[in-house]
Amino acid sequence: MRNIKITVEYDGTNYSGWQIQKNTGETIQQKIEQVLTEINQAKVSVCGASRTDAGVHALGQTANFLLNSSIPTANIPQAMNRLLPNDIICKEARDVGLTFHARHDAKGKKYRYRILNQRYRSVFKRDYAYYLKYPLNVTAMQQAGRYLEGTHDFSAFAASGSSIKDPVRTISSLEIKRRDGEIWLDIIGNGFLYKMVRIITGTLIELGSGQLTVAEIRKIIANKERNQAGFTAPAHALTLMEVYY
Amino acid sequence: MRNIKITVEYDGTNYSGWQIQKNTGETIQQKIEQVLTEINQAKVSVCGASRTDAGVHALGQTANFLLNSSIPTANIPQAMNRLLPNDIICKEARDVGLTFHARHDAKGKKYRYRILNQRYRSVFKRDYAYYLKYPLNVTAMQQAGRYLEGTHDFSAFAASGSSIKDPVRTISSLEIKRRDGEIWLDIIGNGFLYKMVRIITGTLIELGSGQLTVAEIRKIIANKERNQAGFTAPAHALTLMEVYY
Repeated sequence: MRNIKITVEYDGTNYSGWQIQKNTGETIQQKIEQVLTEINQAKVSVCGASRTDAGVHALGQTANFLLNSSIPTANIPQAMNRLLPNDIICKEARDVGLTFHARHDAKGKKYRYRILNQRYRSVFKRDYAYYLKYPLNVTAMQQAGRYLEGTHDFSAFAASGSSIKDPVRTISSLEIKRRDGEIWLDIIGNGFLYKMVRIITGTLIELGSGQLTVAEIRKIIANKERNQAGFTAPAHALTLMEVYY
Repeated sequence: MRNIKITVEYDGTNYSGWQIQKNTGETIQQKIEQVLTEINQAKVSVCGASRTDAGVHALGQTANFLLNSSIPTANIPQAMNRLLPNDIICKEARDVGLTFHARHDAKGKKYRYRILNQRYRSVFKRDYAYYLKYPLNVTAMQQAGRYLEGTHDFSAFAASGSSIKDPVRTISSLEIKRRDGEIWLDIIGNGFLYKMVRIITGTLIELGSGQLTVAEIRKIIANKERNQAGFTAPAHALTLMEVYY
């Protein structure tokens, strides 16, 4: 028995997120398990580092699974890619110790939220960036972003109804920059509450459009009330960039 | 009656090309005419600068049409975009003289052919770039490209069966460069024969993979025989970038 860590890239547009769930459409995990089960000739269960939501994409999702098959590790990506649909690919596979767990052992994750902020929408970015016509004040967003960096109780930025034992998380970096007509929010943290990146983004968009002030952002963090923070920015513009170990 | 020139962007993936034809699927022209007819409350016929093939994309296709409606020209893009599907957008509209003809008056066009040339395919580029795993010799391609620049009889690079009165065209620039794991072929010319850009690309791919030499490219141009040139590179990786007037 071997423990294998893989890195996968996917276009989440046509999936109900990463995790297998009852009564939903197809999920990424399900597709990957089907393919690995076929390669292994016996049931394979896959554990992903991040349970990305429906519509969310990944450039560097990681996962691990136990394998009986004697297939050389270096051949796993090619074997998987022959069987996977063209919106999911395996980019790398490596052997890891039997105790390695893709989610528990993750030290951090990087997400990118893409806002298309120009006069016209783009047909090529329609599934990957959130289109906002009105100009956003990026300088104000960067200023507010600095208050979100660090270790905080992020209860105000967790989807209401989600049960969290410990809402304290550390955002080690929140960078906001303009690139090719887009605004990118690059967030690195040791972990994220449910929909936290999208609620932080929605809140910073409200700030960037003048509906909130930097002082109010500080109050929202302190008050820990979800209803004081901004809207949940749409899923399709979010990409899991990398998982750190 | 006004003559309006528009610039449009589209993702060609789900269309049977630009031009309305019998017995094919939906076309871009058809979608645009439907929308303009609705805005104009009377039939509008649109003339496009380039008859892009099925699957080919455009960042800067141009077209013109005659309009009765009194809608201010500046409002035309917004009015169209409200009605267009999300894979077609109008980026600009301007008034032009009544004799302006988007195709006949075009002085040149720029196309980009995108080759994804890296170890793994990309899920995000699957509809926009042609994936080739084996490394291509870009230096040789650039060398051969210089022989294609200039004014030539391009019969060897026209789809067989196409009837051409005058197969002489001028390529003013053929630039080949690496960018983000891709190879871009940027071709500017005063006009192109049927499938010419894709046959030039296929020929340069065969050269870049060692199946043809630079000397052979010169012979292919001179001999004017389609069967000596390379394969027709797939349509989905081609984008009409700009039309010059």
